[in-house]
Amino acid sequence: MIVIVAYDISDDYKRDRAAKLLLSMGFQRIQRSLYAARGGREKARQVAAALKRIIDPVTDRVDIILVHDHTWETRIVIGEGANIPGAKPKPGVTLA
Amino acid sequence: MIVIVAYDISDDYKRDRAAKLLLSMGFQRIQRSLYAARGGREKARQVAAALKRIIDPVTDRVDIILVHDHTWETRIVIGEGANIPGAKPKPGVTLA
Repeated sequence: MIVIVAYDISDDYKRDRAAKLLLSMGFQRIQRSLYAARGGREKARQVAAALKRIIDPVTDRVDIILVHDHTWETRIVIGEGANIPGAKPKPGVTLA
Repeated sequence: MIVIVAYDISDDYKRDRAAKLLLSMGFQRIQRSLYAARGGREKARQVAAALKRIIDPVTDRVDIILVHDHTWETRIVIGEGANIPGAKPKPGVTLA
């Protein structure tokens, strides 16, 4: 399974802490606020508990989605994201 | 099925156009750069083709993921995202 984390965090310091936390938990940066890692429900719970301690529960938002490997590997990717610090460009997987 | 769109677009004008496009295609804003709509592979292809015409293929990045309703409904949501213009707060669905 793949754990996908998307966050929308207003405060720069909190956002930076969240990014560092995710990288330290083995997540790969896909986009500035989109990360993915191999893992299951337990990993999803762990990252949720850890992010809960960082974000502002009113202004900010985190969505954590658990998908099958196939779902992730067959997603459509457009663009290289060369501006995204730390993100590894992945050749697009086009369904068309 | 649910079509999830996450984008990372550097240019303000292009990002605004992408947001308007997604809303016009019936997507709901979940986070600033995360949208979701009911739909299948064809909707995923259509939104991909439309976004391809907007983004900068080198600097920007779009990931489009097609998931089952259950996968989306059982995602973990933390925070209300009150700062996110247009996003409808959704009570958290916690797996824990």
